[in-house]
Amino acid sequence: MVSKRNKKELDAEVPSGKFEGTFYPQRVVLDTSLFVNPDVRESFGNTPTEALEAFLSLATQIHILEFYMPPSIFEELLHFVEKDKIPEDLLLILNQKPPKKHELKCPAFLLYELIEDIRERVNKGLRIAEKAVRSIEEKSSDEIIQDLRRKYREALREGIIDSREDVDLLLLAMELDALLVTADKGLIKWAEKLGIRWLFPEKFKNYLLGAIKRSGILTGKGK
Amino acid sequence: MVSKRNKKELDAEVPSGKFEGTFYPQRVVLDTSLFVNPDVRESFGNTPTEALEAFLSLATQIHILEFYMPPSIFEELLHFVEKDKIPEDLLLILNQKPPKKHELKCPAFLLYELIEDIRERVNKGLRIAEKAVRSIEEKSSDEIIQDLRRKYREALREGIIDSREDVDLLLLAMELDALLVTADKGLIKWAEKLGIRWLFPEKFKNYLLGAIKRSGILTGKGK
Repeated sequence: MVSKRNKKELDAEVPSGKFEGTFYPQRVVLDTSLFVNPDVRESFGNTPTEALEAFLSLATQIHILEFYMPPSIFEELLHFVEKDKIPEDLLLILNQKPPKKHELKCPAFLLYELIEDIRERVNKGLRIAEKAVRSIEEKSSDEIIQDLRRKYREALREGIIDSREDVDLLLLAMELDALLVTADKGLIKWAEKLGIRWLFPEKFKNYLLGAIKRSGILTGKGK
Repeated sequence: MVSKRNKKELDAEVPSGKFEGTFYPQRVVLDTSLFVNPDVRESFGNTPTEALEAFLSLATQIHILEFYMPPSIFEELLHFVEKDKIPEDLLLILNQKPPKKHELKCPAFLLYELIEDIRERVNKGLRIAEKAVRSIEEKSSDEIIQDLRRKYREALREGIIDSREDVDLLLLAMELDALLVTADKGLIKWAEKLGIRWLFPEKFKNYLLGAIKRSGILTGKGK
């Protein structure tokens, strides 16, 4: 796998004259939304399996990027794809790596932002619940509860990092100084706080096509 | 103020023979619960003002401890005391210091614990709200809402750090490697995670009395 070559191997190629300078492969951390979310996987395929296949066929042509996914996210992805249709080089192209969660540190001032955010959401949740109780004369309790669930989840979950998987993605991108490809608003908000580069999945296909072109230039194969 | 002496001054005393070794004053970070919470201030006084006065009169006799409070917590405290009754050396004995929130780092794995904790609480909050809607046939909506508020706050707030002031206390104790005196369960839980020493306010009077005795021994004044 050319895209798996480590820095030493890349450096070793420099004297051959094909490279004008050394380079480090850019690392990219992928969220499942890229393959699973119908709106954002559009440019890759109609099903999660198709999208993953399309990604892999592009990725094999790229020598200047390394692709990563935390195992927790990878497992999520496997729930959505037909495993027997996925090329066997998946595991080689898409590196599974958990973040070094006991070595990494995050800036303490982020605790303030997280706590304030949660506080506001919790208050909002209570107001939603109160409104639900007051609306009992207009609707049946089943209707009210259905409505309550939707509004409550919207208020307390959207735009927030709310799972171990989310934290895995952020920390892995932080550890690897990688580009994070995700459509999740909560993750993007936190990537901004932590200085992590991020990209919308909609733009990812063009990014890969650009990388294929650039891989050819850098290795001399594209000339 | 003897308790304000910095390390250099303390070291300077060593040659006089009064000290067998050098020591650093132990730092103590105080939460308002010590003065404000009736259950825990008991040993200090019947009102917040009395409790603060009692603390100050003990603290002035102690040369081996330095007392700190984040400004946010100090401001909280001032809402509860009669300011004209407080001795003017309050500001000298009880140091106000905000934590260096943009320099401090916290272990990234704590993000997982915080996020999981919040996730569970949010789910619990929704179940409480649903139950409230279902109970509409038994009780009036005013009763239900009163009940809902209590249960919801209990589930989402208790045992969690949920304010800027809480984060101030934790980070200041972390920065100063101090002992945190608090009755707040959420703070104690997080102090445990962060390796911060903590003490129940109920034990704090004895701690101070011990420090007075030890101050005498160390400075030779108590002999």
